[in-house]
Amino acid sequence: MLGYRSPLSDIRFNLEVFDYQRVVNEIEDFEDFDLDMSMELLSEYARFCETELAPLNQKGDQIGLKFNAEDASVTTPPGFKEAYDAFVGNGYSSLSHPAEFDGGGGPATLAIAATEILIATNKSFSMCPGLTNGLIDALAAHGTDELKARFMPKFVSGEWAGTMCLTEPQCGTDLGLMTTRAVPHGDHYKLTGNKIWITFGEHDITENIVHLVLARMPDAPAGIRGISVFLVPKFLDDGTRNGVTCGGLEHKMGIHASPTCVINLDGAEGWLVGTPHKGMRTMFVMMNAARLNVGIEGLALSDAAYQAALAFAKDRKQSRSLNPSRNDRDDKADNILVHPDVRRMLLNVKSTNEALRGLVAWISVNYDLMHHHPDEAVREEAGDLVALLTPVIKSYGSERGFQNVSEALQVTGGAGYTTDWPIEQYLRDVRIAMVYEGTNHIQALDLVGRKLPMKNGRLLQGFAAKLTGLIQECGEIEALAPFAAALGREAGRLTKVTMELSSRAMQDREVVGAVASNYLNEFALVTLGYVWLRQLRHLNDHEDSPTKRSKFQTGRYFFEMVLPEARHFAILASVGKECMMDIEVDLL
Amino acid sequence: MLGYRSPLSDIRFNLEVFDYQRVVNEIEDFEDFDLDMSMELLSEYARFCETELAPLNQKGDQIGLKFNAEDASVTTPPGFKEAYDAFVGNGYSSLSHPAEFDGGGGPATLAIAATEILIATNKSFSMCPGLTNGLIDALAAHGTDELKARFMPKFVSGEWAGTMCLTEPQCGTDLGLMTTRAVPHGDHYKLTGNKIWITFGEHDITENIVHLVLARMPDAPAGIRGISVFLVPKFLDDGTRNGVTCGGLEHKMGIHASPTCVINLDGAEGWLVGTPHKGMRTMFVMMNAARLNVGIEGLALSDAAYQAALAFAKDRKQSRSLNPSRNDRDDKADNILVHPDVRRMLLNVKSTNEALRGLVAWISVNYDLMHHHPDEAVREEAGDLVALLTPVIKSYGSERGFQNVSEALQVTGGAGYTTDWPIEQYLRDVRIAMVYEGTNHIQALDLVGRKLPMKNGRLLQGFAAKLTGLIQECGEIEALAPFAAALGREAGRLTKVTMELSSRAMQDREVVGAVASNYLNEFALVTLGYVWLRQLRHLNDHEDSPTKRSKFQTGRYFFEMVLPEARHFAILASVGKECMMDIEVDLL
Repeated sequence: MLGYRSPLSDIRFNLEVFDYQRVVNEIEDFEDFDLDMSMELLSEYARFCETELAPLNQKGDQIGLKFNAEDASVTTPPGFKEAYDAFVGNGYSSLSHPAEFDGGGGPATLAIAATEILIATNKSFSMCPGLTNGLIDALAAHGTDELKARFMPKFVSGEWAGTMCLTEPQCGTDLGLMTTRAVPHGDHYKLTGNKIWITFGEHDITENIVHLVLARMPDAPAGIRGISVFLVPKFLDDGTRNGVTCGGLEHKMGIHASPTCVINLDGAEGWLVGTPHKGMRTMFVMMNAARLNVGIEGLALSDAAYQAALAFAKDRKQSRSLNPSRNDRDDKADNILVHPDVRRMLLNVKSTNEALRGLVAWISVNYDLMHHHPDEAVREEAGDLVALLTPVIKSYGSERGFQNVSEALQVTGGAGYTTDWPIEQYLRDVRIAMVYEGTNHIQALDLVGRKLPMKNGRLLQGFAAKLTGLIQECGEIEALAPFAAALGREAGRLTKVTMELSSRAMQDREVVGAVASNYLNEFALVTLGYVWLRQLRHLNDHEDSPTKRSKFQTGRYFFEMVLPEARHFAILASVGKECMMDIEVDLL
Repeated sequence: MLGYRSPLSDIRFNLEVFDYQRVVNEIEDFEDFDLDMSMELLSEYARFCETELAPLNQKGDQIGLKFNAEDASVTTPPGFKEAYDAFVGNGYSSLSHPAEFDGGGGPATLAIAATEILIATNKSFSMCPGLTNGLIDALAAHGTDELKARFMPKFVSGEWAGTMCLTEPQCGTDLGLMTTRAVPHGDHYKLTGNKIWITFGEHDITENIVHLVLARMPDAPAGIRGISVFLVPKFLDDGTRNGVTCGGLEHKMGIHASPTCVINLDGAEGWLVGTPHKGMRTMFVMMNAARLNVGIEGLALSDAAYQAALAFAKDRKQSRSLNPSRNDRDDKADNILVHPDVRRMLLNVKSTNEALRGLVAWISVNYDLMHHHPDEAVREEAGDLVALLTPVIKSYGSERGFQNVSEALQVTGGAGYTTDWPIEQYLRDVRIAMVYEGTNHIQALDLVGRKLPMKNGRLLQGFAAKLTGLIQECGEIEALAPFAAALGREAGRLTKVTMELSSRAMQDREVVGAVASNYLNEFALVTLGYVWLRQLRHLNDHEDSPTKRSKFQTGRYFFEMVLPEARHFAILASVGKECMMDIEVDLL
């Protein structure tokens, strides 16, 4: 079996389709990062991931983590620390970190493309630098110069790692229930409370760990409007141990090499980031990037699983084709790729992966535009798109990713159920993506309850205009017209469902909860249809090439066999709430 | 958290709906097994499973199996052997085994209902007696009196366990590629070859293990028409070791306490069962029962997961209802069952579980009728139904079971991803059901390619007549008419898709492969709709009761939110093969 190979050419293709060049051309800071240069960086990065991180992935899963209760320490699997040192030493963790702190200074698009490769080779490993990224974003947005000077160089160099401490036993989805306290103490605070589900909350990979902790000050208003954010280092500047300790590890279905910790704060010293009680703003800076990241987890493991399943299928001979012309006369059985159902399973995965990768490129280009473009109107338009599509990629990417990995496993039969193949680990590792960084239903509520009504519906209007424009344009191009027509039907249905939903939601907000998850899936499939049409339009004038043929054939499969599910989700989204809410709870 | 509780009352309800009484009344052998008596047996059986087997389930998963290469022995987790001895000692493994060999002599319906409970409490454990059942069925159908006398008492008492040895490295789905050889040797045969994926192929639970091995005699025709079946015991009658050894264990995602063995045959002595070269007949006796069993695996773990998710949901408070009238004014958050999406997830699981349980009851009652009813016409009609619905329950039961366990996990959030809850194990354990005993696509091909055309379409016609009759009848009952109408629409669509499919398949058999999997899912949902309508019709004249209200409310959910997917599968089944088969393989 061939190992995972980074999808560099498909990444490049999508950066072309979604106009990465604009980031380079229109944002001065990024003028050195043209497509060729960026792909060169990515290619070197990919080689490292494939050769250094991928080999640690199954070992990390099998050996897992060790918690030593005596000193509350956590030992990561052999090789992880060395790989991390090389990873940060090569600057791979800081591709897009601020140049002023010695980061690579590249566009987020570059770092986000790299993330897919990192996750695909070793998801557990990826979570350590991934969390530090979040802290850098939060500090950059809301930290004082003093805090930045103290923490940024260590984060950017990778010498220190970060964590996000939100959840408490009684408080997960509902952060308003938080009870961790932060009491003022001179120029800083003392924090006390118990946090759970803290990824890389304790480990032996870096010399220091800095927790970004959500907590309440004594005078805080109730609910989420009274939450502040603090940086709480494991070791203080004088080298003494701060009052923050790991109380144990969770035993999980997957991501066995990623420590999920109980973190106890006992008068731990912490430094406020941003404004008192306005911590949710800082949190959302991290959270939005993290949510995009989780969507990419679905894509990354789905593609890794696809590659394994395809390698299996290319090698395996079993049964005869029902079409005698496909029979391999030199052997007693045909290669299983003659069987339509094997192709169906592979194409379900491939056609959604390639759309998700395009969606990631589209969002990440806009992520750079929203943060750095000189023109405010461009920044706003890009920001609208990112805000609208972040819950979509998080939820659909993770849900489809899980389905796709399972579909890839099915291609390999019993083999894929064993550790002889990597797919069973991917399935276990990817499942958590539907849960963390806000469950998928929370994403759906974010889409329907916040993003649709936001700014009087401007986010949706901007998206709809792009969709309509593309459908019209492609409807007049012969090779694209059937796809444009299919997408047009689903886009029209989506508009109708959206209007019905908003009028029903005005009368009864509970309806939003009942239909949001199915609505998000409908929305996501239409979005993936848009991405496919962008990809095909891009190639339509190109000369014949394997890429062009592959994209048209795979895209056709998407429009015929995947997009129709949008209609099914529309039907479910139209059912309403009664069949759920009229049932007596005691009869469940 | 409450542990799993056997669904005894729902089993009883379904036995009433699907006329178990007829088995008792019309088959003389079963006259002692009226519903009360059967439920009493089941209730005692359930208590044993809940108290003795369930506590071993997670331990078995975590401790797993040990293979000792020196003597090729396999050690099962602590407690498994003792539990097995008590299980067979109580007669629980032989509820329906032939009375002449000291079995319980009960109907298969009773044993099949018991199976759901056994699997739900400990799936790995269940596979050991499950396989022995298969050997008993095969021997009863095709064994000589001599073979029966030699093996049956040991199988029925549980002193010896059985295995099925089909797969070889080059030969899984395609049994025609089999190479294991059986050479005549006096009154028996000597077998040589390598078998893989052999469940309970080696273990320390019973004093002897008997393998039912598929192999070719030297003069055998090529392909599956040259396969014979042999009984190959681990120990021969004189106590010497036969030439059959375990070459190692697979390392799997789940069912960690069920040894999946490589089995090497090296001149092993074996005894022919049935006619030379006609082994597939014997195999299918076992296989059909095994396939029903695998469908039940999906149901069993889905229900166990549902119970855990519901227990979690009843306890967990998080966020506020979007409907202020549901707010719990005594607490800071509402119980999560106020959230429509939590109910949606739970009802997706519950409404399909309860239909699957009805389907199992319907098939199993017919299983008894087909084997034992004095009237040949009844036997034939029942046999048609069992043959038609076996691939449906195997495939849809396992696929839906996997989806449902994942949905239940989603209800519990991060908690369910940890070993603090049993759901993550259920998810890992249930995934294999989509693969073994014929992958789900093989089931779909069996349905479309074999069962539909069989006997000039008689199987389908019989089923369609039942469906039409019920829809008509219920269409005239006010409380049932909306459900009958919904089912009528889907049944009509299914008829149309079936007719189109058979006319297309006549021109191009490859189309069958392209559409079979989606067709089976459409067929399954219509079948589950039939089951729901039977259940509701049964209750319609009853007085108001919690059961009646629960069934009507859950059934309503099914018709509004689950059945519509039949239409989606119909759309996919109508797409045909081109978008799969026109793609260039090198571009995948």
